[in-house]
Amino acid sequence: MDRFVIAPPLLSGSEPLVSLKLCDARLQADARYPWILLIPRPAGARELEHIGNGDRTQLMEEIILAGAAVRAIGAALGRPVEKLNVGALGNVTPQLHVHVIGRRTDDEAWPDPVWARGEARRYVETALIAASNAALAVLRAMQAAA
Amino acid sequence: MDRFVIAPPLLSGSEPLVSLKLCDARLQADARYPWILLIPRPAGARELEHIGNGDRTQLMEEIILAGAAVRAIGAALGRPVEKLNVGALGNVTPQLHVHVIGRRTDDEAWPDPVWARGEARRYVETALIAASNAALAVLRAMQAAA
Repeated sequence: MDRFVIAPPLLSGSEPLVSLKLCDARLQADARYPWILLIPRPAGARELEHIGNGDRTQLMEEIILAGAAVRAIGAALGRPVEKLNVGALGNVTPQLHVHVIGRRTDDEAWPDPVWARGEARRYVETALIAASNAALAVLRAMQAAA
Repeated sequence: MDRFVIAPPLLSGSEPLVSLKLCDARLQADARYPWILLIPRPAGARELEHIGNGDRTQLMEEIILAGAAVRAIGAALGRPVEKLNVGALGNVTPQLHVHVIGRRTDDEAWPDPVWARGEARRYVETALIAASNAALAVLRAMQAAA
């Protein structure tokens, strides 16, 4: 259990963005919501309590960073984010991962959570590129500043 | 907006437990799940990014603490927790608050999130006291050790 491997269900539903200090950041491949997945690399972690104190502080900072990136995705796609939703659930895929999702009062699931609601909608390629670029610009700028 | 006031919907659905360093910890009054609500006291915060860096680190530690308390509630009620769910949503009540919920594969909503699923079930008084006492024992012990 020492090597970091992303669980197949997390991998298949998302696109790679960047490797942050603690987490791999990935764009959830669901055009309904600007949505970033953070997957901490310490192997075998399933709960927040399974990573160390310093890693938890770092995770919190990467959640804030992902929130800024999610806002940038919403802006790039002309649908500014109105509320962030952050969740660490893992009921379906136990590997520790954190969802950072941008919500709008006119989105499909509002005001309910997005999980287990409807089917993911594929990005058209131009939107996927725009979303990825917007997220990367924020993630890399803040990574460089850290 | 300087005084800490808990939004009425958060207040009415929960019972007070203890005031931690950053958050008021409350027991969600829903016997279906061991469930603690953490409400950071900095006034006016609606997103994690609205509280300072040090407060975010503290919040993460109080989430870990609440997780241990939620496990203690599950054990006290004879339904050990199998997975923790942590979420900061705020779509319905914008005041910043974090849910820490104990899940089991045989619970009502599994594997879906608990929010917006079914109606809260009232605790019978003995169970409410047992749940509160179990949570308080953990929260106070760890508070004393901090």
